[in-house]
Amino acid sequence: MRPEALIFDVFGTCVDWRTCIARELAAVLPGADALALADAWRGEYQPAMERIRAGNRDYVALDDLHRENLNLVLGRFGLAVPDRDGLNRAWERLDPWPDVVPGLHDLRGHAIIAPCSNGSIALMTRLARHAGLPWDCILGAEIARDYKPRPGVYLASCAALRLAPESVMMVAAHNDDLEAARAAGLATAFVPRPMEYGPDRQSDLGPAQDWDVVASDFPALSRQLFG
Amino acid sequence: MRPEALIFDVFGTCVDWRTCIARELAAVLPGADALALADAWRGEYQPAMERIRAGNRDYVALDDLHRENLNLVLGRFGLAVPDRDGLNRAWERLDPWPDVVPGLHDLRGHAIIAPCSNGSIALMTRLARHAGLPWDCILGAEIARDYKPRPGVYLASCAALRLAPESVMMVAAHNDDLEAARAAGLATAFVPRPMEYGPDRQSDLGPAQDWDVVASDFPALSRQLFG
Repeated sequence: MRPEALIFDVFGTCVDWRTCIARELAAVLPGADALALADAWRGEYQPAMERIRAGNRDYVALDDLHRENLNLVLGRFGLAVPDRDGLNRAWERLDPWPDVVPGLHDLRGHAIIAPCSNGSIALMTRLARHAGLPWDCILGAEIARDYKPRPGVYLASCAALRLAPESVMMVAAHNDDLEAARAAGLATAFVPRPMEYGPDRQSDLGPAQDWDVVASDFPALSRQLFG
Repeated sequence: MRPEALIFDVFGTCVDWRTCIARELAAVLPGADALALADAWRGEYQPAMERIRAGNRDYVALDDLHRENLNLVLGRFGLAVPDRDGLNRAWERLDPWPDVVPGLHDLRGHAIIAPCSNGSIALMTRLARHAGLPWDCILGAEIARDYKPRPGVYLASCAALRLAPESVMMVAAHNDDLEAARAAGLATAFVPRPMEYGPDRQSDLGPAQDWDVVASDFPALSRQLFG
């Protein structure tokens, strides 16, 4: 199994969104429960995308969904933030897990690497510049104008590389993402990120299926695939 | 004028397609007039795209147009090549002009950089890996599903970055590309590549309009824009 391209989930798999979003929230809302706010903001992520996946709303970039969800959460918590647009761009300033940048450089020596995220091209581009993620190109939701785990997002990403799905490996810390990628014909690699939701996390602590590769981090993934 | 992003024409502006295509043709067709063949292959480029721009054919990636045009040209010259698909991938193996890689690294320190080419995402991705072009993302024809100089290609590239056209600068060695970009509201930079078509070239030797910037090469462009 030597994939010609690896495509990656980003939020949670490559970057520690929770710590970074909480840090940005704490900076503009001193005294608030920043982790609870971060979890509440991220909690609106799936419902917002689900309306689009279900066909009840045309495709809207994740930047706009994040911005709408921020309004919702600040309202629910009764909080005021002067620069909501600026705060919304916190999603462009997430830090990578420590193994990610060296691991991506290793992998890029052997295969094309690209995000296959629900983030927009703009968001993934700015996040890559912030975090030093050396992507070859940006794939994912925006080129499919739909959201994972809909099969079209994985298939559009393979098609954009002119590769058959079986030549492309999806890398994620979330079993449901890999399940959808496998159903679309892609190879799969699970890299656990047990701290994504903090120490109390219950889900995705290990592989739920016999994924093609299970690796402890990105450099280990590169060694397992390419020696 | 400090653009937030610079988007680039690639064939001719960033890479020396003619010398490289001729070299690959010479390798598989010893004795043939490789430069004439390269010019003939490239000569079918605009007519093939024109059918799509005019709405007479659905969008087809440039990889496929190149492959069709190769058949056409080999037929016209009465030449046989065993591996036409492999030869067609010569477009993924073009070398950059000597100033391009250092200049792009300079520019990338100040702004988002991306190709806005008629090449597909797959072609631009593999070419960037071959030539060492440090793009932040791949924009251009495929995300618009149309071909330059149609305005939608420039506008889709700006929209994918969530930037207004006036914050984005189109960089090209071809006046007609800049004319279309300016008409779409983008800033413009002309970088002459007088050797693109060899020593006998007549067109695009200098700027045809008062482009926002005229620079002798990419490092000079970076100095003029960002000091």
